[in-house]
Amino acid sequence: MDFYRNKKVLITGGLGFLGSNLATALVKVGAKVTLLDAMLPLYGGNFFNIESIKDKVEVIVADIRDSVKLGEGVKGKDIIFHIAAQTSHVDSMKDPLLDIDINCRGNIIFLESCGNNNPNVKIIYTGTRGQYGKVEYTPVDEKHPVNSTDIYGVNKTAGEQYHFIYSNAYGLRICSLRVNNTYGPYHQMKHSFYGILNWFIRLAIDGKAIKVYGEGNQLRDYNYVDDVISAFILAGASKKTDGKIYNLGSGKPIKFLDLVKKVIEIAGSGSFEKIPWPEERKMIETGDYIADFSKIKKELGWDPKIEMDEGLRRTVDFYKKYRDKYWRS
Amino acid sequence: MDFYRNKKVLITGGLGFLGSNLATALVKVGAKVTLLDAMLPLYGGNFFNIESIKDKVEVIVADIRDSVKLGEGVKGKDIIFHIAAQTSHVDSMKDPLLDIDINCRGNIIFLESCGNNNPNVKIIYTGTRGQYGKVEYTPVDEKHPVNSTDIYGVNKTAGEQYHFIYSNAYGLRICSLRVNNTYGPYHQMKHSFYGILNWFIRLAIDGKAIKVYGEGNQLRDYNYVDDVISAFILAGASKKTDGKIYNLGSGKPIKFLDLVKKVIEIAGSGSFEKIPWPEERKMIETGDYIADFSKIKKELGWDPKIEMDEGLRRTVDFYKKYRDKYWRS
Repeated sequence: MDFYRNKKVLITGGLGFLGSNLATALVKVGAKVTLLDAMLPLYGGNFFNIESIKDKVEVIVADIRDSVKLGEGVKGKDIIFHIAAQTSHVDSMKDPLLDIDINCRGNIIFLESCGNNNPNVKIIYTGTRGQYGKVEYTPVDEKHPVNSTDIYGVNKTAGEQYHFIYSNAYGLRICSLRVNNTYGPYHQMKHSFYGILNWFIRLAIDGKAIKVYGEGNQLRDYNYVDDVISAFILAGASKKTDGKIYNLGSGKPIKFLDLVKKVIEIAGSGSFEKIPWPEERKMIETGDYIADFSKIKKELGWDPKIEMDEGLRRTVDFYKKYRDKYWRS
Repeated sequence: MDFYRNKKVLITGGLGFLGSNLATALVKVGAKVTLLDAMLPLYGGNFFNIESIKDKVEVIVADIRDSVKLGEGVKGKDIIFHIAAQTSHVDSMKDPLLDIDINCRGNIIFLESCGNNNPNVKIIYTGTRGQYGKVEYTPVDEKHPVNSTDIYGVNKTAGEQYHFIYSNAYGLRICSLRVNNTYGPYHQMKHSFYGILNWFIRLAIDGKAIKVYGEGNQLRDYNYVDDVISAFILAGASKKTDGKIYNLGSGKPIKFLDLVKKVIEIAGSGSFEKIPWPEERKMIETGDYIADFSKIKKELGWDPKIEMDEGLRRTVDFYKKYRDKYWRS
């Protein structure tokens, strides 16, 4: 990972879940890291996430829709990890215009800024498994049709395609990582609108009941955040990834109900109850999801290392220790 | 076509090329037609297009982004043909935020209005072959990946997916027609930003030189407007089309250069010259395009009837007769 020594890196959404975990890892390998984050109240940005690296990073509090401040962050960088987004499936259905404003308009402002200020920069775009929507076959590879069940997923695909169009037009070097469900430390714990597994961890720690929709038999594929960050770091360092799309995944799908039981067991508290599917969730449910991540495994040697038991233990330990930084009981 | 007798129909973009041709056909079969059009200066809306039916249709001059006026148009309708859009590939690259505003935000405003005012209405969405982008195989069927080469194509796909999401959430009955290159009467002739074949007809009528990029060997697939309108009418009248996507096509692809020669021959004037591909066009060129329209042929019996020679003759005759309504020489 000598590649990153003294490399100038911008992370948008840098104080959020993926952004702050990535920043922490990049500081360790000697990168010069700038974080840009809008610190929107209900989103993932949290200054505590960067407490351990705060003297080693530059922070710009700005929205990607603010082209002036964004331009300052974009200039002179070697690599940009573009993570800032509206990321709630449910919110995208309640306020689709906000999702368009951030995830469509915001991406164009971002790309115009990159094209004008830094046309040869390498950009890692944060895609999502939500782009695939209703699962037509498993495991889901990168050729699976994009049939999102929510506005968020549609706009994430539009944002990804904008990146490749701007790459074609202006020379930007683009790689998209379609991130799997992810959990771990530094995730917001204020609400359940995204990061449901982290939300369950909060409920278990607080000794509350976790609601399982239906029988909880739907299969889910989860990555511990450190493995996802490794994928970002590998993708950012390799020329091979220019113009490419890669799925992430765990190779170890788990039934939703089993996941909930594991959380309760590892937290040592909490319970669960089965309830009928709420309309707003049923509407955007995709069916069993299992990722095929053989492409990134083959091309970059990426393979997730942290087993779910270990990942959950680390996450539970983190939030038990720092609960007051993330929620009030 | 008894189906349409006394049916209440709304056409968005109703004074433009497809909208006004469709309105004329629907009035003939006894539909009660309302046209909504923003009459944006560089777009296709033209009151002359509806000269022959003006006493038989209601006209609302309003933008689809104006939810109040849109709501008045949407209420009580049996079928909505949703054609209004920003439709220029090149403009979408020059002003991507405008394209997002009309083709993303505008579609959400439209769908919210339908969901709130008329949740069971049938909607025909106007998709485009531009959604496919770089052609991976020919003929291009509906399963071809959507890899648009321009912002317009990306946002047309987003708009189409929004429709299916709203259908799932609110009950709207949606069919998308992915329209092929189309030409014929009632098309705007002010500029070449969309409807290139119509633009060539103007140049030929005016005795000017038509510019052919490169050798003009790229294959294109063209439909005469009356055939496209037949597809809209069939799709709007059939329950089978709920939730479906259909390609249109001609089955008779033609080399670009041959098309140009045909225009000059039928117009009896004009010439052509070969020039190198301009950057802005090369950037969004998709390669040879041939549509596979076997799905709509099989399911609705749609088959294009007007040969290119006949279509061009009708179009040339129309514009020779009404030139002053469409452009100043």
